Amino acid sequence: MRQRNKPWAKDKLNEYPQYVIASPQEHKGNWDTVFDQKQPLHIEIGTGKGRFITGMAKANPHINYIGIELADSVIVSALDRIIEEEIPNVKLMNVNANDLEEFFAKGDVDRVYLNFSDPWPKSRHAKRRLTYKSFLQIYENILVDQGEIHFKTDNQGLFEYSLTSFSEYGMLLTYVSLDLHKSDYEGNIMTEYEEKFSNKGSRIYRCEVRYQ
Amino acid sequence: MRQRNKPWAKDKLNEYPQYVIASPQEHKGNWDTVFDQKQPLHIEIGTGKGRFITGMAKANPHINYIGIELADSVIVSALDRIIEEEIPNVKLMNVNANDLEEFFAKGDVDRVYLNFSDPWPKSRHAKRRLTYKSFLQIYENILVDQGEIHFKTDNQGLFEYSLTSFSEYGMLLTYVSLDLHKSDYEGNIMTEYEEKFSNKGSRIYRCEVRYQ
Ligand SMILES: C[S@@+](CC[C@H](N)C(=O)[O-])C[C@H]1O[C@@H](n2cnc3c(N)ncnc32)[C@H](O)[C@@H]1O
Ligand SMILES: C[S@@+](CC[C@H](N)C(=O)[O-])C[C@H]1O[C@@H](n2cnc3c(N)ncnc32)[C@H](O)[C@@H]1O
Repeated sequence: MRQRNKPWAKDKLNEYPQYVIASPQEHKGNWDTVFDQKQPLHIEIGTGKGRFITGMAKANPHINYIGIELADSVIVSALDRIIEEEIPNVKLMNVNANDLEEFFAKGDVDRVYLNFSDPWPKSRHAKRRLTYKSFLQIYENILVDQGEIHFKTDNQGLFEYSLTSFSEYGMLLTYVSLDLHKSDYEGNIMTEYEEKFSNKGSRIYRCEVRYQ
Repeated sequence: MRQRNKPWAKDKLNEYPQYVIASPQEHKGNWDTVFDQKQPLHIEIGTGKGRFITGMAKANPHINYIGIELADSVIVSALDRIIEEEIPNVKLMNVNANDLEEFFAKGDVDRVYLNFSDPWPKSRHAKRRLTYKSFLQIYENILVDQGEIHFKTDNQGLFEYSLTSFSEYGMLLTYVSLDLHKSDYEGNIMTEYEEKFSNKGSRIYRCEVRYQ
């Protein structure tokens, strides 16, 4: 995601503790108390400017959402959406996916979304892909048993890699679409990247996998 | 595959017992004796006019091949190729994939190829797809332990279905290409359907899966 230099980003994030979780480690094992409603928790990793996570939160008021994003200059745009629309069931966390086990205990999270994750096309960078086995291990350690990952991307190489990585990890593939926008999948909520790449004519790939 | 009426097909197949296996049940557990060389056995199911299986046999003289095809009017074209080129390490079987366990014992087969299998797009016909679980069970019962299926198709729906069917069966996905002809996969041997559909601009999908 293009990162403009926004030196004021961190300050702005700190000004909205009702939307941006300030000390996530304090809620480990206890996330229900962070939201108005006690209901399932779905997180998106690499949430970007938050179009997907806010759209999902509005469409599914019976689910709590957290958008996780490393870049403060990007996640502030997600914050702007939430401020403007006053969405109660979505929060943001400006942290690195590497550290998720510090913030979530086993079973805290009911589903993980990965959307248009950075592809890291060179094989020597495979470990950085958010579907590399070390990340699958982290997600497993914070998800409920039989928790799911829902993944979409326009990147063919990343999708191919991820299908084999999920399989090697022992996960079950329950859904796959090799051309989401021409499929009969209903209720798709687009991300920023999804809109950009599908407008350019790229196919969107999508799958759902489950830990066993 | 377009089936012209060829009333003479059965007779022609019977005239070449050195190429078309006449009583396959007699070789169950004992296929080595059928070929000149004792070497691994790979079979293709739905071999059509035999372009793939004969190409593979010529490229890989250290492997024995059997092309299996239900339609006598189609498999005669495969026979013509073998007669003409006198390929020693490929044979044909004019039988139904449903009956493979009558002809092969567990471990007789080292690899199964499925190429451009009939897609049976209606869900009520899912059981007829050659990647339906009952067929995966048949292949498992004739393959070596950790035997592989190599599958290619132009049909997006069949490929999506098959990926989930393999996964639900507990198989490991070790390779996937979502655009074979633009990938770095080397040594691809085209089938008749592959040539036809790729000339029309269709993508070719390919995967390798392994029993665990
Ligand atoms: C290609 S963008 C996609 C953004 C958004 N999901 C979309 O589809 O429009 C990937 C995002 O993931 C974020 N990201 C990459 N690695 C991350 C990590 N380890 N933890 C959290 N966010 C990460 C990047 O900062 C970037 O904003
Ligand atoms: C679409 S054609 C593809 C032929 C060839 N593999 C190719 O790629 O050009 C599928 C073939 O599978 C054969 N077939 C379908 N079901 C079969 C079965 N149960 N056992 C053996 N062959 C079968 C059909 O007769 C047909 O020739």
